[in-house]
Amino acid sequence: MRSFAGRDILSLKDFERAEFEHVFEVADQLEPIARARRNVDLLADKTLVTAFYQPSTRTRLAHEAAMHRLGGHVLGFSDAKMTRAGDYYQESIKDTVKMLEFYGDVMVMRHFQQGAPQEAARWASIPVINAGDGWGEHPTQVLTDLYTIKKELGRIDGLTFLCIGDMRMRTMHSMAHALTQFDAEMIAIAPPEMSLTDEFKAEVAEKNLTIREVDHVKDAIADADVIYVEPVVQADYTVSRQERGDDVGQTPANYQVSREVLQLAKPGSIILHSLPRMDEVPPDVDATRHARYWQEAYYGVVMRMSLLALVLGAKE
Amino acid sequence: MRSFAGRDILSLKDFERAEFEHVFEVADQLEPIARARRNVDLLADKTLVTAFYQPSTRTRLAHEAAMHRLGGHVLGFSDAKMTRAGDYYQESIKDTVKMLEFYGDVMVMRHFQQGAPQEAARWASIPVINAGDGWGEHPTQVLTDLYTIKKELGRIDGLTFLCIGDMRMRTMHSMAHALTQFDAEMIAIAPPEMSLTDEFKAEVAEKNLTIREVDHVKDAIADADVIYVEPVVQADYTVSRQERGDDVGQTPANYQVSREVLQLAKPGSIILHSLPRMDEVPPDVDATRHARYWQEAYYGVVMRMSLLALVLGAKE
Amino acid sequence: MRSFAGRDILSLKDFERAEFEHVFEVADQLEPIARARRNVDLLADKTLVTAFYQPSTRTRLAHEAAMHRLGGHVLGFSDAKMTRAGDYYQESIKDTVKMLEFYGDVMVMRHFQQGAPQEAARWASIPVINAGDGWGEHPTQVLTDLYTIKKELGRIDGLTFLCIGDMRMRTMHSMAHALTQFDAEMIAIAPPEMSLTDEFKAEVAEKNLTIREVDHVKDAIADADVIYVEPVVQADYTVSRQERGDDVGQTPANYQVSREVLQLAKPGSIILHSLPRMDEVPPDVDATRHARYWQEAYYGVVMRMSLLALVLGAKE
Repeated sequence: MRSFAGRDILSLKDFERAEFEHVFEVADQLEPIARARRNVDLLADKTLVTAFYQPSTRTRLAHEAAMHRLGGHVLGFSDAKMTRAGDYYQESIKDTVKMLEFYGDVMVMRHFQQGAPQEAARWASIPVINAGDGWGEHPTQVLTDLYTIKKELGRIDGLTFLCIGDMRMRTMHSMAHALTQFDAEMIAIAPPEMSLTDEFKAEVAEKNLTIREVDHVKDAIADADVIYVEPVVQADYTVSRQERGDDVGQTPANYQVSREVLQLAKPGSIILHSLPRMDEVPPDVDATRHARYWQEAYYGVVMRMSLLALVLGAKE
Repeated sequence: MRSFAGRDILSLKDFERAEFEHVFEVADQLEPIARARRNVDLLADKTLVTAFYQPSTRTRLAHEAAMHRLGGHVLGFSDAKMTRAGDYYQESIKDTVKMLEFYGDVMVMRHFQQGAPQEAARWASIPVINAGDGWGEHPTQVLTDLYTIKKELGRIDGLTFLCIGDMRMRTMHSMAHALTQFDAEMIAIAPPEMSLTDEFKAEVAEKNLTIREVDHVKDAIADADVIYVEPVVQADYTVSRQERGDDVGQTPANYQVSREVLQLAKPGSIILHSLPRMDEVPPDVDATRHARYWQEAYYGVVMRMSLLALVLGAKE
Repeated sequence: MRSFAGRDILSLKDFERAEFEHVFEVADQLEPIARARRNVDLLADKTLVTAFYQPSTRTRLAHEAAMHRLGGHVLGFSDAKMTRAGDYYQESIKDTVKMLEFYGDVMVMRHFQQGAPQEAARWASIPVINAGDGWGEHPTQVLTDLYTIKKELGRIDGLTFLCIGDMRMRTMHSMAHALTQFDAEMIAIAPPEMSLTDEFKAEVAEKNLTIREVDHVKDAIADADVIYVEPVVQADYTVSRQERGDDVGQTPANYQVSREVLQLAKPGSIILHSLPRMDEVPPDVDATRHARYWQEAYYGVVMRMSLLALVLGAKE
């Protein structure tokens, strides 16, 4: 297995099974620190640079929280409008990276453009972590999700993943890539215009992941161990919720995980959602035995602790 | 007295006299650290989460400065627009809190909606500090103000508080609640449409605080030991100062603390203002013996050091 | 030489030769920390307050990175819109400073208004560092630039500086003031409406810096040891790049440092640019022997480490 020290985390296409397992193992070692709520000194001499060209709450703060839990320092920007680089000049990724690499020791980047973190990694002398790139990938989220599943269900092999929502989203891509490394099944439910491309399906099929596609959550939920949900209602960030009125969040029943449809689910199945949500998982589901999205938020910090410690060489 | 460890600071309605005194005592213990300008290690293993749904400078930075003085870590957001949660999704407080509680060990929240911090506290496993909720309360500000008075005048009992400005503002509510726990008098001066509700007056009257209402600052300033000022000119955040031109800050004489009206004031009386100000306290008042709003800013850090150390259990 | 402890860094007009040399010497002492990428404890008990009334990436983050490298704490605001002070109230500098001075131990300020940091320094009990004030000065940038030159070329004396771009910009002012303290020559190339004022030229001429003005980069580049570039295309921050389309970045050949015109340059000459850039230095120049703007970014952190350590009294 390649060492993680100094390595970029850009895509789960890169990841082999042993690497997933190693990342989970280091997470297990560091988890007691998060649980005890006591920051330690492991990364006290290191600085994390956050380069968020799109607003984010969970992903940005989970990385920052992880860095702080390990005693480290954090700086950066959380919106492209806050930087001269992003807004007026639309500075090249190269120019921006050739500055940011001197401001810290690891960089986490979210970008509206697919491939931007890869471009950053090309120029940076420090590790780059992809925190979501357009329709590309979102590797740290899916590592979080798989780690949550491992902690909650004890294993990943042998499970059936029911993925519901917009299949063009980066989490879905990263999840499918990840599942090629496990003995798992994937079922996808999406509106036709949001479904996986034939090209993508062929790519993962070559690695022995066949994706079954169905039309309605009720047709497959009985088979699922993991119910993995993303919205299908498109977020239009240029219109505020106030302006839109009630005209949002009307998720069709096909793609909604309601208490009603959960009647059909296996008793031990769990629901994950990277949040925020529209109404694809209504709030009354929170109280069911299936909800695990808040545990997911907790493990989001633990997973980033593992990744930061690894790429900074503080854990072998 | 209830222990402060793990406790929320939501309203001064909750506070008893002994609790005020305890918070002031711990502030006295920590004040030399602020004075010496040397950060210590008391909270080095803790992280403060700032959740500001409305911009703030003083309140947010005073909490952050306090945390840094005690060696702690800070992360969060300073504007709802900076988070996916706040803007497009208008995520429920519950969903947001069920994430933020894992990112740190105490949360300070400002929200445009009255009651939002209470809702947050309902769901959070970590202490929540209310940094101002709509027309609700602003407990840390008023604790700061009372501590400033104690340091500047030596006591709170026996003093007459002249409160000038919009009585619907959260500081005014918190101040009235606080004064029920002291042997103090309160006089209120506000435009009719901004005066205290009968309901509110009845509520504090039950706890033996009678509020005298007068029309003009000159009719009461001679009685005041503490002149406590808020603006009456309404801030319309959707219009920039440039667009408004000179059309602002025309505070009627009734509600203005000018050098002229201060001729009538007791020599030892002090002016507090949480700032920023329009022209209700003109700049030429800064040089008078009465101005204490900058000391108030300093004690704002000391008070937050006390509160953070207490709710995090670092001080008993 | 005056001590740096507690001192403001507002203008290079203040600086004497021995002071430049001392700042460079302390930078040399601290540089190994930046190179080793290991934060130390030198300023662990200090807090930096950032007061950026205009967005900035490099200048803000370079100060923050320097503070973190020396183990210090950072808080503040990175956009006036994020503060109640800046936007609606347009609070006076005095009012803002009389708050910020309690939140930390040194303040770095960028402001759209020339002279604002000087006004801040008038009221603050802590050192104020000018991070750029309107058309005024940008002392820390030019200290960075001179330090980069010293590291790359071994000296400043005896060099010819070819300054290209808008001469009204603050870096140009600071550079001219700085060069009065060295045995250096300055050549300026700018569109007529962006040239140095007679007043300014007279001011530096009194200190024995004569500035030669030419029309086209090709007429002077052969003489230059340092090619110091700023844009001539005006940034209009109210219009996004998308809205402007291709209508930007058309730098006239007179003010552009292209590979073609570099054929005429001395082999050992170096190009500096504080970045971001439009097309005054095209990307294909990056691969030439002359490009040093990325080293400049690195030394930007080292220089701020020196300045922060000095004004905070951690280095004598």
